Amino acid sequence: MAELRRDPVSGRWVIFAVERAERPEEFRSEGFSRAGGACPFCRGSEHLTPSEIFALRDNGVWRVRVVPNKFPALRVEGDLDKRAEGAYDVMSGIGAHEVIIESPEHVVNLTALDDARVGEVLWVYKQRLLDLRRDTRLVYGLVFKNVGPRAGATVEHSHSQLIALPVVPVRVQDEIERARAYFDFRGRCLFCDIVRQEEASQLRIVTETSNFVALEPFAARSPFETHVIPKRHLSHFEATGDDLLREMGTVLRSTLARLDQAIGSAPYNYLIHTAPFTSPVMEHYHWHLEIIPRITRMAGFEWGAGFFINPVPPENAAQYLREIREGNRGPREDPNLNARGR
Amino acid sequence: MAELRRDPVSGRWVIFAVERAERPEEFRSEGFSRAGGACPFCRGSEHLTPSEIFALRDNGVWRVRVVPNKFPALRVEGDLDKRAEGAYDVMSGIGAHEVIIESPEHVVNLTALDDARVGEVLWVYKQRLLDLRRDTRLVYGLVFKNVGPRAGATVEHSHSQLIALPVVPVRVQDEIERARAYFDFRGRCLFCDIVRQEEASQLRIVTETSNFVALEPFAARSPFETHVIPKRHLSHFEATGDDLLREMGTVLRSTLARLDQAIGSAPYNYLIHTAPFTSPVMEHYHWHLEIIPRITRMAGFEWGAGFFINPVPPENAAQYLREIREGNRGPREDPNLNARGR
Repeated sequence: MAELRRDPVSGRWVIFAVERAERPEEFRSEGFSRAGGACPFCRGSEHLTPSEIFALRDNGVWRVRVVPNKFPALRVEGDLDKRAEGAYDVMSGIGAHEVIIESPEHVVNLTALDDARVGEVLWVYKQRLLDLRRDTRLVYGLVFKNVGPRAGATVEHSHSQLIALPVVPVRVQDEIERARAYFDFRGRCLFCDIVRQEEASQLRIVTETSNFVALEPFAARSPFETHVIPKRHLSHFEATGDDLLREMGTVLRSTLARLDQAIGSAPYNYLIHTAPFTSPVMEHYHWHLEIIPRITRMAGFEWGAGFFINPVPPENAAQYLREIREGNRGPREDPNLNARGR
Repeated sequence: MAELRRDPVSGRWVIFAVERAERPEEFRSEGFSRAGGACPFCRGSEHLTPSEIFALRDNGVWRVRVVPNKFPALRVEGDLDKRAEGAYDVMSGIGAHEVIIESPEHVVNLTALDDARVGEVLWVYKQRLLDLRRDTRLVYGLVFKNVGPRAGATVEHSHSQLIALPVVPVRVQDEIERARAYFDFRGRCLFCDIVRQEEASQLRIVTETSNFVALEPFAARSPFETHVIPKRHLSHFEATGDDLLREMGTVLRSTLARLDQAIGSAPYNYLIHTAPFTSPVMEHYHWHLEIIPRITRMAGFEWGAGFFINPVPPENAAQYLREIREGNRGPREDPNLNARGR
């Protein structure tokens, strides 16, 4: 079984998962491995994955399918054992590690699906979170997506992942504490304030609908970092109404399509930050989805300081993304955007 | 001038440095660029760098040389202007960005120098920190090193960098706060306790001298992450005695040489975490050097959660590194170490 260890200095948890070293991937390779040529996520290859956990079906044919990760970082079997080892904290590697296969056809990008189907993928995230939160050993569910080998993807077929954890990740805990301090001081949700300020200035907005906004954050870590935020206050992603998730499908697809044109299909990650399973509705925390293009490098300064250096002001990136029309290659010659490599 | 912006949700600072986009490096390339073939850091190419800030000389010939970064993230000229922009914090990009050229000969790794010369490089770090802390606008000095293009290096010739900042980086602030909480609760320095626990168990020690220990941290983020820690309590790197830095030269060189053999010259970063310029001597914080091999990838889970997945237990990595004799390729066949790719 994997073991979770906490670094007492930084507070971060590390999963020691020796089994994952057997993944069919060489850490220096930059391409996808496809043993035997068959994509394990396509319709007809269902026997190549572990047993199905959940599926959205239409006349008996699956549209979105959830399976356990074949090389899981954590497993659901076993007891949650917590102990000290001198100054250190250790926990057994209990958790869930699932793969959400977004399409039965071999597509490599969520943008190949239409708005409604992107909304269905979001709805499946919700169903899995609602199911996993019933396991009282688990306190947090993190949904994320790796696109491209340099962003950590090992299978090309469009998919997301969900890891449910017995602890709240340090990044999320930090956000919650900071948002709590803001709420205590101002009496308002920090994220609601950000949405209001951004809507007023319009400087960093990429696209919006009645209930969602996609924007470049004021202190974006990398060129074209983009966040999708619900306008109405909501702490838990899994409490979002199905109608809202359908609407978000439109915003997310449009945002990813614009990014694809802007960064030329560069690798990216996205992830959903939401309140812990174990928290009641929070007035001070607000779920959101962060898209992080992987086009700049982390060097010693970034690792050591948690500082980032970004050559593209988010105002320029937002303007560029706004001006892209789908099916149009966008204003490629904008001189400010030659700045987007470091 | 560059601008510093703070993300209100995570607390991290981002430097918007549009000029750095002009660096002669393509963000997707994996090799070094060397315009015209001449290495700008070799003896005889001094005219290719900005004016010298400091040098350690022997009979008029430099051995270690410090120059401003040609493409600085921050500059010393100008006033430190701090302001709000609605919910956001902004600061002018005042700071220093220096390059420490570690040798006049074209060497690509610190381990090509002998112990005494590695100690001299550490002594030069100290001199620069002592000088920069006199500038009252600056509150923190971060020394770091990028080795290999994938770790962010753009020049091959062995060098380190120093960025002095008008704010304390969030990673360091987090460490200080966590160590402070430990001290308040236990009345002892967390780092001193770690050193004692590790010396008692010996499980994760790589090498040690009377005053320094190199060890694999209990919750290492990546295979072969290694920390070098002074055994006696000391909060500020720049307060370290010259004799101690000479001794550290031996430990650091030996550690890097072992790592080179273990990870086959893979890219790595190292960085020094020390107390802020503006803090008095701290009983609860203890400087240390972190070496992070860049052999696993950051994917969505790591970005989103601040969680890491490591396939190699630090106990195995430490044993492997201990058994390496310099000039000996080490116990390559250890089956646990085939696990070091993810």
